[in-house]
This record gives sequence, C-alpha cells and structure tokens, in this order.
Amino acid sequence: MNEFELIDHFFKQPAYRASLGIGDDAAVFKPSPGHEMVVTVDAFFESSHFLPHTDAKAVGHKALAVNLSDLAAMGATPRYVLLALVLPQVDETWLKGFADGLFALASRFAVELIGGDTIRGPLGVCITAMGEVPEKKALLRQGAKVGDEIWVSGTLGDARLALAHRRGEMKLSPEWAIVCQQKIDYPEPRVLLGQNLLDVAHAAIDISDGFLADLHHILKASGVGATIDLARVPQSEALKAYPDWFEKAALSGGDDYELLFTAPLQQHRAIEQLATDLGLRLTAVGQIIPQGVFFLHAPPGFVPSRGFDHFAQSS
Amino acid sequence: MNEFELIDHFFKQPAYRASLGIGDDAAVFKPSPGHEMVVTVDAFFESSHFLPHTDAKAVGHKALAVNLSDLAAMGATPRYVLLALVLPQVDETWLKGFADGLFALASRFAVELIGGDTIRGPLGVCITAMGEVPEKKALLRQGAKVGDEIWVSGTLGDARLALAHRRGEMKLSPEWAIVCQQKIDYPEPRVLLGQNLLDVAHAAIDISDGFLADLHHILKASGVGATIDLARVPQSEALKAYPDWFEKAALSGGDDYELLFTAPLQQHRAIEQLATDLGLRLTAVGQIIPQGVFFLHAPPGFVPSRGFDHFAQSS
Repeated sequence: MNEFELIDHFFKQPAYRASLGIGDDAAVFKPSPGHEMVVTVDAFFESSHFLPHTDAKAVGHKALAVNLSDLAAMGATPRYVLLALVLPQVDETWLKGFADGLFALASRFAVELIGGDTIRGPLGVCITAMGEVPEKKALLRQGAKVGDEIWVSGTLGDARLALAHRRGEMKLSPEWAIVCQQKIDYPEPRVLLGQNLLDVAHAAIDISDGFLADLHHILKASGVGATIDLARVPQSEALKAYPDWFEKAALSGGDDYELLFTAPLQQHRAIEQLATDLGLRLTAVGQIIPQGVFFLHAPPGFVPSRGFDHFAQSS
Repeated sequence: MNEFELIDHFFKQPAYRASLGIGDDAAVFKPSPGHEMVVTVDAFFESSHFLPHTDAKAVGHKALAVNLSDLAAMGATPRYVLLALVLPQVDETWLKGFADGLFALASRFAVELIGGDTIRGPLGVCITAMGEVPEKKALLRQGAKVGDEIWVSGTLGDARLALAHRRGEMKLSPEWAIVCQQKIDYPEPRVLLGQNLLDVAHAAIDISDGFLADLHHILKASGVGATIDLARVPQSEALKAYPDWFEKAALSGGDDYELLFTAPLQQHRAIEQLATDLGLRLTAVGQIIPQGVFFLHAPPGFVPSRGFDHFAQSS
C-alpha cells in the first residue's frame, strides 16, 4: 500500500446518515427535520495538548472527545466529524492506534467521519465536529438566571493531577497515577447528560479551562453573579489524597470535560433522578445571584484565578 | 490588550445568518429550506503549503480560497467557516495581515466566520468551510457520462511556475514573476462558476493536485475514460513564454484552483454563454469515452504522471 492507500485504509468508511461521505471535494448532509446544526473545531497538537510519545490511541480518543464535549455542552446530538491530520511521516503503527482510539469513541455515539485532509507537518490533528439540536433549543452560556442552582457533573481534579505528575510538579502514588492518567488521556464527553439537559438547564459549558474559568464564562455571558460553596465542589478520590492540590486541580485545573450547568430550583429533583438514570454524579455547588462572586468555605489565602490561557503559560 | 483580546479583536464578529456565532462552546445554524450542507476541511501549514516569510495576507486569502474552491467544485454557495489557528506566538502584525486576507475574500462571498480555536504550535491554519446546495443537486466527481465534453476554467500553469521560480528550479522574468506569484498567493475560487454549473455539468472537481491527477479522480469515480486534446489545454500567458514547462506546470502542476468539469454536448452553447457572462475563459479540452485515456497532440516522450502526493515528494 502506498501512503494514500494506507490512510484510506484506516479512515475511509461508507456514508451512513450523510448523503455523501469521504472521497469527493466535500461531504454533503442535512440536519433532521426541525433541527439546527451545531459545529465546533479544536486543534490538538503535540507539546501543546499531548506530550511526545503519548499513546496514539489516547490521542485519537481525546482529540474527538474534546469536540464531542463541546457539542454536549450545547445539548447537541453528535453526528459528523471532519479530520485534518498533520503528520511528520506516515507511520502505520501510529495511524492504526490513532484510528482505533478515534473510532472506538465515534462508534459509541454513531458519529460518522465524512471528510478530511492529510498533510505533512508537525504532529497534530484538527477535528471539526457537527451535531444537531431541536431548533432554538441549544444550551448556551448566556441563559443563567438569578435563583438557578449551579451544577457540576462527575468529579474534578484528576486531569490536572495527572499533568502535575507528568511534569514532575508532584508525585502520585502508582495507584492514583493509573487512575488520573486514564482520566487525562481518555476523558468521557458527557453527551447523554447534555442531551438530557435540553429542557432542564438554562445555561451550560464544559469544564475545559477549569471550574473557575468556565464558571466565569457563564456568569459573564449571562450578566449574573454566583455564590459557590467550595466545600461542595466534587473532588475526585485521588484529589482527596492530595488536599494541597484542591485549588490548582479542582478549581483551576482544566481538561476535566465535565459539564457545568445552571437550572431552576424546581428542576432539582429531576436532575437528581437524571443522575441516577445516567449513573453519573451531579452536584449542586451554588446558586446564581444578581452580581458578584462569593465563595463559601474558601481555604485561607484563596484568590480565584481565571484558568489558563494557551499563550499566557500561567498554569 | 492581552493575547485573547487581541485574537477576539481581529476575528470576533457578530453573527449574521447563523443562529449563533463565535463565543460559545459551538456555533449554531441551519441550511436554507430545501438545501443540504456541503462541508470541507483543509489544513494549511508553513513549509508544506507556504514558504516561511510568506505575506500573512496571502496566507489568510489562500487558506480560505482553497476551501471555497472545494465548495465551488460541488456547486455549493459558501456560508460559514471555522478557523483553527496554530501560532508560535501572538504577533499582532501577522494576525492583522492574516485577518485582512481572510476577511477580504470572505466578505466578497458573504461568508461568516462562526467559530474557531487558537493554540500555540508551529505556524499553520485549519479551515472548515460550510456551504449549501439545493437537495440532491451537489456536483460530484462521479457523474461524468460517455459523450460529455470535458471543460477547464481559466488557464493552467502559473502557480507551478511561481513555485519553480521560488524553488530556484528556473528563473522567471521579473514581469512574469509578478503575475505568477499573484496567482499562487491569491488564487481565485470559482464560486460563481460552480453555482452556475448545477444544472449544466454532470461532474466537477477543482484542479488542486494538477490537471492530470484531478482528471484521473473524475474518470475513476465515474468509471469512464477520456480523450484529451493537449493542444487545447488552456495555458497561461506566462507558460507560453516557457514552453518547456508545459507538462510540469499545465498538466501536473497543482494549486491552480480552476474547475475541471464534464457536461453533455447540448450544453456547449450555454457554457460558452456562461463564459461570456462571468468574464471567465472556459475551454473544452476533450471528451468522455467508455474507457482508456488517450492524449492528442502529446509532446514527444509524454508519460502522464498522476499529480503530486503530499507524502511522495514527487513534484
């Protein structure tokens, strides 16, 4: 097989829902009746987003997961992806691992790869994900209302602990290292949760920059404030073993890909039932107020940062 | 301005046609009634696609132009783009130039930037372009029929001559150097032509890999052959001054972004009228036959290559 055939071998699939998939100048599809398209793009490059020698399967999983997480935060059902691959060379083993990671996740949500581009360059991928949502129902950052409860899915902290461990900022015990590295390499996009929040939540975002930074995005977009009980922020089991890392990992650490959403008080029971149905922890951590941000149970000397900026190198 | 504000300053625009543009986890839009979406992605990186020190405005123009060209080859009307920017550092001058080039072209076709991502890494961009086409009308590579005439828009060769000049493979006179460099840096996507071919052509592709390679794509997808009169292949004025470069530049040179399409004989007059209306040269260069590929007026020793492969480094 030449290099083009090799890439086709790993990535070319027949179109299923799309009118036209891989193999022409562009792909063709239409949303389901009564639905709008929801689209997002994320670039994912070595060094910036994953360390050299990261398992290719993890790169394939995570590059797609971060995009599906964006769609989940809109309440969208994921449908299609486009993949631009930038490769220093065509390495069959790497491509196979990457494709395995990508398609294992894609097939769980019936997401179709319908197009792409492959070029020579420094290792990285750029994924465009497209989903659909009933018209005018998309969950935005800007819908939070005074009185809403503020919820967080899952637990926070593992991804930042894994990064700290890899960077040598601290050392996790071997058992926690395995748990945390699984969470940073194979984050789970909260797709089903997002879909189930469409008629429940007022605003939503995925926690990619960190709890405080993403909370700030919702408050700013909605023009409101919040009271947060820091003692209720759901910490991972690993984080409980390293309490000094609470602020950096649970509050300011990015890469957790849990959902942060606000919903009216009268939805409290429905959300608890949803947590049971999905087998996913959902925790109310505070409330929307007209303005200002107040933290209950803040540790001594607590000064909230606003999460990281890819160019500020502050994390 | 911090770096995020700077990027917002250059790229954030209010949504116009889209339901939701830049600023949330994803963008939201829907196709016009009776239309399908057409989507494509192209990665465009320094060294692979443009030489270091290429004018940022040209990078912005061309990164979008190659995507609009893909949509044009499907007969689609471009609507939206997503931009993933990979930057070694935030350079205000470069960003301004890039944005100028991108938006000058985008605004000519009323294309909206509705989302993106900015990360630190080796200079490059990844653009996803989305257009729409009346349902089931998209122009494919696979529609060519025996008896169809084969047409080419514009002239071929300038982009490859400019590349040869820049690589030192040959030396263009100063006058031709200006003309050819304009063509390689600022290719014109044939958007209006593509839209006007919807009820006229049977198959279409844009000439990005080279005339022979892209002809091969159409013939293979359609399961047909062709007779091509090489004497009719429309050469650029510059190429006529360097006849030794005919094969390499007009037949195998990529990057021209003209359209290659097939249409039934009875459309011949309509296509000539379209050329007049659009002020664009359209040339019939051959005919679709059941099988085999035959070249009339081939130069001595002519052996058709199949265009370039980003990994083969054959061009």
